Amino acid sequence: MSQFAGLTPLLAPRSIAVLGASSDPTRIGGRPIAYMRAQGFAGALYPVNPNRSEIQGLKAYASVADLPETPDVAIVAVPAELAAQAIGDLAARGVKGVVMFTAGFAEMDDAGAEAQAGMVATARAAGMRLLGPNCLGVFDARRSYYATFSSSFDSGWPVLGRIGIASQSGAYGTHLYTLARNRGIGASLCIMTGNESDVTVGECIGWLAENPDVDVIAVYAEGIREAPGLIAAFEAARAAKKPIVMQKVGRSELGGKAAKSHTASIAGDDAVTEAVMAEFGVYRARNSEEMLDIAHTATRKIYPVPNSLGVITVSGGAGVLISDVAESLGLAMPEMPLEAQQKLRTLVPFCAPRNPVDATAQVSNDVTLVKTFTESMVRDGGYASVLGFFSMTASSRRWPEIRQQLNAVRTENPGRLYALSVIVPPEGRDALEADGWVVHEDPTRAVIAIDAMGRYGAAFAGQAPDPAPVVAPMTLPASNPSEAEAKRLLAVAGIASAPEAACATVDRAVAAAQQFGFPVVMKILSPDILHKSEIGGVLLDIADTAAVRSGFALLLERARVAAPSARVEGVLVAKQLKGGVECILGIHRDPVFGPMAMFGLGGVFVEVLKDVVFRRCPFGPETAEAMIRSIKGAPLLLGARGRKTADVTALAAMLSRLSAFAVAAGDRLLSIDLNPVLAMPDGEGAFAVDAVIEVGPTGPS
Amino acid sequence: MSQFAGLTPLLAPRSIAVLGASSDPTRIGGRPIAYMRAQGFAGALYPVNPNRSEIQGLKAYASVADLPETPDVAIVAVPAELAAQAIGDLAARGVKGVVMFTAGFAEMDDAGAEAQAGMVATARAAGMRLLGPNCLGVFDARRSYYATFSSSFDSGWPVLGRIGIASQSGAYGTHLYTLARNRGIGASLCIMTGNESDVTVGECIGWLAENPDVDVIAVYAEGIREAPGLIAAFEAARAAKKPIVMQKVGRSELGGKAAKSHTASIAGDDAVTEAVMAEFGVYRARNSEEMLDIAHTATRKIYPVPNSLGVITVSGGAGVLISDVAESLGLAMPEMPLEAQQKLRTLVPFCAPRNPVDATAQVSNDVTLVKTFTESMVRDGGYASVLGFFSMTASSRRWPEIRQQLNAVRTENPGRLYALSVIVPPEGRDALEADGWVVHEDPTRAVIAIDAMGRYGAAFAGQAPDPAPVVAPMTLPASNPSEAEAKRLLAVAGIASAPEAACATVDRAVAAAQQFGFPVVMKILSPDILHKSEIGGVLLDIADTAAVRSGFALLLERARVAAPSARVEGVLVAKQLKGGVECILGIHRDPVFGPMAMFGLGGVFVEVLKDVVFRRCPFGPETAEAMIRSIKGAPLLLGARGRKTADVTALAAMLSRLSAFAVAAGDRLLSIDLNPVLAMPDGEGAFAVDAVIEVGPTGPS
Repeated sequence: MSQFAGLTPLLAPRSIAVLGASSDPTRIGGRPIAYMRAQGFAGALYPVNPNRSEIQGLKAYASVADLPETPDVAIVAVPAELAAQAIGDLAARGVKGVVMFTAGFAEMDDAGAEAQAGMVATARAAGMRLLGPNCLGVFDARRSYYATFSSSFDSGWPVLGRIGIASQSGAYGTHLYTLARNRGIGASLCIMTGNESDVTVGECIGWLAENPDVDVIAVYAEGIREAPGLIAAFEAARAAKKPIVMQKVGRSELGGKAAKSHTASIAGDDAVTEAVMAEFGVYRARNSEEMLDIAHTATRKIYPVPNSLGVITVSGGAGVLISDVAESLGLAMPEMPLEAQQKLRTLVPFCAPRNPVDATAQVSNDVTLVKTFTESMVRDGGYASVLGFFSMTASSRRWPEIRQQLNAVRTENPGRLYALSVIVPPEGRDALEADGWVVHEDPTRAVIAIDAMGRYGAAFAGQAPDPAPVVAPMTLPASNPSEAEAKRLLAVAGIASAPEAACATVDRAVAAAQQFGFPVVMKILSPDILHKSEIGGVLLDIADTAAVRSGFALLLERARVAAPSARVEGVLVAKQLKGGVECILGIHRDPVFGPMAMFGLGGVFVEVLKDVVFRRCPFGPETAEAMIRSIKGAPLLLGARGRKTADVTALAAMLSRLSAFAVAAGDRLLSIDLNPVLAMPDGEGAFAVDAVIEVGPTGPS
Repeated sequence: MSQFAGLTPLLAPRSIAVLGASSDPTRIGGRPIAYMRAQGFAGALYPVNPNRSEIQGLKAYASVADLPETPDVAIVAVPAELAAQAIGDLAARGVKGVVMFTAGFAEMDDAGAEAQAGMVATARAAGMRLLGPNCLGVFDARRSYYATFSSSFDSGWPVLGRIGIASQSGAYGTHLYTLARNRGIGASLCIMTGNESDVTVGECIGWLAENPDVDVIAVYAEGIREAPGLIAAFEAARAAKKPIVMQKVGRSELGGKAAKSHTASIAGDDAVTEAVMAEFGVYRARNSEEMLDIAHTATRKIYPVPNSLGVITVSGGAGVLISDVAESLGLAMPEMPLEAQQKLRTLVPFCAPRNPVDATAQVSNDVTLVKTFTESMVRDGGYASVLGFFSMTASSRRWPEIRQQLNAVRTENPGRLYALSVIVPPEGRDALEADGWVVHEDPTRAVIAIDAMGRYGAAFAGQAPDPAPVVAPMTLPASNPSEAEAKRLLAVAGIASAPEAACATVDRAVAAAQQFGFPVVMKILSPDILHKSEIGGVLLDIADTAAVRSGFALLLERARVAAPSARVEGVLVAKQLKGGVECILGIHRDPVFGPMAMFGLGGVFVEVLKDVVFRRCPFGPETAEAMIRSIKGAPLLLGARGRKTADVTALAAMLSRLSAFAVAAGDRLLSIDLNPVLAMPDGEGAFAVDAVIEVGPTGPS
């Protein structure tokens, strides 16, 4: 049995009770009944209302106990003060799912949150799933199931189709579905989770991934509250090759504003969610139109690997624009092969046969040129995706002939993504869609959607992720370890530090420095001083024995002044590494997704440019290397402008080991900052120069 | 008389001849006549065709010479081989303007380019302006002037309105105008410049800026060929407070390539054009929908300074999304004043009164709450722009009442920008537009357009730019100056270098180093070695006299090996400055816009991240400081994370002096690189550490 099948009684019920049922088809307790009667819901529909014997032509029941059978789902539209009683009755009756419209709970105040928690406890004890409260519900037009009071159907019923929507916002879910309907896009199944007291948007995505009526999943989310459901859903969708396009808002709300660790201060909820989306090939849409464009294009179920774009036109003009967009996205637009260009030039001397391919106005004299040119693009050019820019030519008298030519190529060369940028009335658009084209008005939007299909293809084709290194479970110390202790812990996981020694006395420090060779770095050693540089606790470029002696005294004095109560264990002496690229590797425990690894280049790259990448822990070295290569500043490690290439292999190994360490360290690990890590020239390794580990309190977790 | 009035006979003629006139209203020589007859052009219309006495019901003339009067404009639709003769006849007759449809010139081959140049010479000698060739022409629906063969009118006539379009591409100009028409947006004047042999897109913008029928200018450009016209046009539009929204393509190399093959365009450097657009507050649209959204919103002629956004809704949900978009754009969404929030909470206990303001479903019980809440936003919140997110509520039964409430606030509080994000049928949209709202379907697009209005406001309110420093004209040396010579030239303009001395002998070098104090930098000194570091010609951290001696020998040896024929003048010894922030200041002569200044931070910021800003020379220090503050890495200069603030004042002074130097140096100056410039801590100045000046050949310019 599939993982999300427990939601089926809730989301695809055979029988439905409506608590708070109303005879008025415009009230929230009346709308679901009116909708399902109008659209012919095939199962049983039981209005529950103690004051009526009949509602909207259906027999009404006085209570849940009176129902002739236990319904799969109950819609709860009663006032807030009656809600707990209703949930109790439904749980007692053994109902499997509840869609709860009633508002006035956690979204309102603390008392509401408490009442909500009580209902959830009741539901969970009975194995009853709860959608909402304060939700707009769910509808599936294919089943004529309308457990919703959305008034959007006043202006029309959904277009049947294979896009499923999961939305945390009722208003925005409806907005989205209505936009889809108005564009003739089939998004006929929509789940809106409201307060998410029990059923989460992640679970809904998972259920859609397992639903045979759904090919593409569109998601609107404001904040993810629960990780396992979402991760399992993303995995299920990827395994089923069902693209997810998701609009995640709340980008501007910074998560760890007051966070202690460097990593945590950058890792807001948004960056972490985005990292998880990227991990599973979930496309992040920037607005609802992009979401619909991509979802709609994806219903063609063609996800080219590798993707490439060929553009055919008979009028030129948008070619530059299209090339700009493709390049900015990294979507390849290779030139046509030279022989093919030559062939086309023989046919039309002044055509533009490179790509975009323009057959010119000669097409007016010989419309078969459209087929000849487009066919050459597909067969000789081998483009995985073909975009025809015909703008308002598609509303001209010549269009039927051109359409015929284009369709001939499409039919004879299946398995490619065929799209048109045209301005046509809705009926013309629908006809082209029926032919098999994806139709966009705007060429920019067409190119973005085509590029997204290639990204899905790459995500679906991706092999299983490389395994993370094995790090044995460990017990963290009771409080934050000192730098030396932190490095010892990390060394067990294979994370190398620069040669160094913890020196309790000045003579030990001198001996260590002489052993490593000058110059050395000296740092105050104390479990109570986390950020040494802030108190002047780090001395660089210590060049000789005398400097070691004076430095030792200086550091102890600075610690005494700045942190009189700190336990000072001495001074750390380390070899000063030269010629490496400074990086930051970090771990931050996200409250939802657990330990997240961060990688960035040192200094301004992290602090000013926020040029960092996140990933859920743990992961293997190939994934780590892909992370490293993904940041904007990566060329700095990869030999830009005559630089030496850094030891990216060693750096990637360190990053993946750190991710495994973070998991092995267990829930008490709050954060790790390796700042800086020096990535030495290729073959010379990578070394953590500083290490800060922050641990939480001991005790039962 | 206004600057662009010379284009009036061409773009707003009283009388028109059509050469190559056709009786077939679907041929390119027939369409203009058919359109103008159908729409009732008020002036004289003279078909010219040697084979007909009558065309489409009008008397036809055998030749230009036979015309009863000299027309203001002639449309040329004759075959290419007859074009030169036609231009000659028109010039001889004294016609003021030509719209030339005929293709087969510069866009095709060298012979075509030559023929085109000949026609332009003929036209210029006669004072006749030439639009095209290979252009789709111009139309102004308000005057029923249709000098175009665009078939777009087959599907409907333009909606009259106050947006003027200037486009280098006929296909894209038509695409844009058709999109506008289908959305009910009034863009009824459109000029398409084709090959731009004479009349440029810049001049067209200028003419639109002076046209009293136009309030907003939309531009599509692939490459700017001529600077003075564009600059004058941008100045005229800004002075007239007419917003320009421009889609500039050819952003990528790929795009640039396609531009060449499409309209024989030499795509100017994209960054340079963008800098010029930024200078004049021209908004760069990312796609045609954004262009129309912004142009349409701008027709309300409300450009708030400072801008701020208040959002009203009755259903919540899109608030986070809208806040995200506003934050990413830097559009302020301040909270409502606390007293106002309190007041609204008294009315509706669980409303969301901060901003977005949500009056909640209580509105169903008392629709006057919409007015109360919105009014409080305008009066108490003082928002310059108000966006109502009502999605499909605007298609619900309650909408007429809500609309009335909203309109009451709008009418009683004029002078603000009022926008709605709603899903309504076209007639509903038109009604709301007639009320005075700007209507967008998508909230993201609404916010972008609202933000753009604030940017226009800021550009229109901007004072005259601060004057550039005065630098006396100078004569550059005959060939590239050495570093020392370059620094001497720059010093005249007040550009400071680090203390340094050109040393022909090793003893001079030792003396100089002792005078400056160690450490010093040593560089090979040769007018023939431009990029010293590539041959190992720069030595850093020279710590003592012995190192000066060995370094001197080493540099001479390296020069001898790497560049045996180079003239070596010795070694430059300079004080090594510590603690400054590395910057790059540069000058690059753009073939269209002349000397452009560039500013960026040193190293990876320029090389890897391309984090730079450009500006036309010359400019004053305030402008320079704004440039410096605009780059992403600016926090590095401004004291990010406990750093010392750099001497931005000195840096800005240097940048503006460099811009004045670039102009004073004249046309032979090709480029300047000051790399690095060290911006020292505040109050300690900025110093050019290296200077490379590249000059062009002497001789008549």
